[in-house]
Amino acid sequence: MIELEQVLPEEIERRSLEIITKELGDRTFPAGQEQVVKRVIHTTADFDYADSLIFSDGAVEKALEALREGCTIVTDTNMGKAGVNKKSLHKMGGEVLCFMADEDVAGKAKSDGTTRAAASMEKAAGLGRDCIFAVGNAPTALVRLYELIQEGRLRPKLIIGVPVGFVNVVQSKELILSLKDTPYIVARGRKGGSNVAAAVCNALIYQINREQ
Amino acid sequence: MIELEQVLPEEIERRSLEIITKELGDRTFPAGQEQVVKRVIHTTADFDYADSLIFSDGAVEKALEALREGCTIVTDTNMGKAGVNKKSLHKMGGEVLCFMADEDVAGKAKSDGTTRAAASMEKAAGLGRDCIFAVGNAPTALVRLYELIQEGRLRPKLIIGVPVGFVNVVQSKELILSLKDTPYIVARGRKGGSNVAAAVCNALIYQINREQ
Repeated sequence: MIELEQVLPEEIERRSLEIITKELGDRTFPAGQEQVVKRVIHTTADFDYADSLIFSDGAVEKALEALREGCTIVTDTNMGKAGVNKKSLHKMGGEVLCFMADEDVAGKAKSDGTTRAAASMEKAAGLGRDCIFAVGNAPTALVRLYELIQEGRLRPKLIIGVPVGFVNVVQSKELILSLKDTPYIVARGRKGGSNVAAAVCNALIYQINREQ
Repeated sequence: MIELEQVLPEEIERRSLEIITKELGDRTFPAGQEQVVKRVIHTTADFDYADSLIFSDGAVEKALEALREGCTIVTDTNMGKAGVNKKSLHKMGGEVLCFMADEDVAGKAKSDGTTRAAASMEKAAGLGRDCIFAVGNAPTALVRLYELIQEGRLRPKLIIGVPVGFVNVVQSKELILSLKDTPYIVARGRKGGSNVAAAVCNALIYQINREQ
C-alpha cells in the first residue's frame, strides 16, 4: 500500500525544506549560504552539496548587491537559462542570456578549434557589462572565464562554477577556486549541472524577493 | 599546479563515456538500457543511477518504436523541454510539449486545488495522442498520470518517472512501478531531475540517430 503524504501544493516547498533542515542535523552554514545549500539539495536530493559547495568570502553578499542593481546572468546552457526565475529577475531589471545557440558562436568555436561554451564566454566578455556567470555544464566555459579574467578582459560579479562531468570538470573548478579577486560559488568535484546552476541563481534571487 | 587533460571538443563525450564504462567495472546492462544508464550518469556524475534506474519489460524497445513514429514528448518543466534534443526529434516528426506556463493550466490548478504539474498532465490527456511523458520535477504529475491511466483516459507510450525531492517523490515513483501495462523508466528513490528526464529522452533519441 503506497500512502501519499497530504500536503497542499503551496506547502510542498516549505515541507521539503523542513525535511532537508532536519536531515542536515546540527550542520550550520553562514547566513546567505544556508539558503543556497538548501536550495541545491532541494533541487538534487543530494546531500553531498552540503560539503562540496565552496563560497569565496562575501560571495553571496556581493552577488545580492549585483542582482539588486539589475545584473545580467549569463548561462552556458539554454536549460540553465530556462531554470532561472526570470519573472523575479526582471523585477530587479536583470535578464538571463545564453549564447550557446548563436550562429556566430558556433562559427567562432569552429574557427578557433574550441567549444561553443568557451566561445560564448568570449562573446559575453564583449558585452561590456560585469555579469554573473552561471556555468552548469561546460568546464571549457570555466577555463575560458579564468583566462579572460587573467587577461584583464572580464571582471565577473560572481562565477557560479558547477559544471558536471568527467573531463576537466574537477580541474576547471580548481582554477576558479584559485582566483583571488573574483567572487565564486563552486561545487567542488564532478557533480553539478544546469539545474544546480539555476538553483543557485534562484536561491540568490529569492533572498532579495524576501527583503521586499 | 592544475593540469588540464588535452581533449578535442568533439572527443569530450566519447572520453567521458569511456571513464564511466571503466568505473562501472564489470556491471552489465541489457542492450538499450546501457545507453540510458550511461547518459544519465554522464549528465549527473552520479553512479547511484546504475542501481536506481528501473525499466519495465521492453520499455526501451517500445519507446524507440514510438519515437520512430514521431511520438510527442510531454515534459513537466520547461527546463526539461529545453534539455531535449529537438533537432533530432523533429527529424523523426516528433515534438516536445510543456504546458506548465499555460494560463488555462494555472487556472485549472487553482480551481481544482491541485498543482500546475497535475493540471498539465490533465491537459495532455486531452490531446488525443499517445505520448511519452518525461517527468523530472513534480511527483504530483506522476500521481495524476497514474490516476488518468486507472481511469482509462490515458495510454502513455512511456513514462519517464524521475522527479526529484522529498514530498511524495518516492511514493509517486512506486505508483508508476506498480503499473502493469504501461512502459516506464523510473529512478527509484528521491533523486532525479529535469536534467535526468531530458537525458533519458536524449539517450533514446540518439539510439535512433545511430541506426540511420
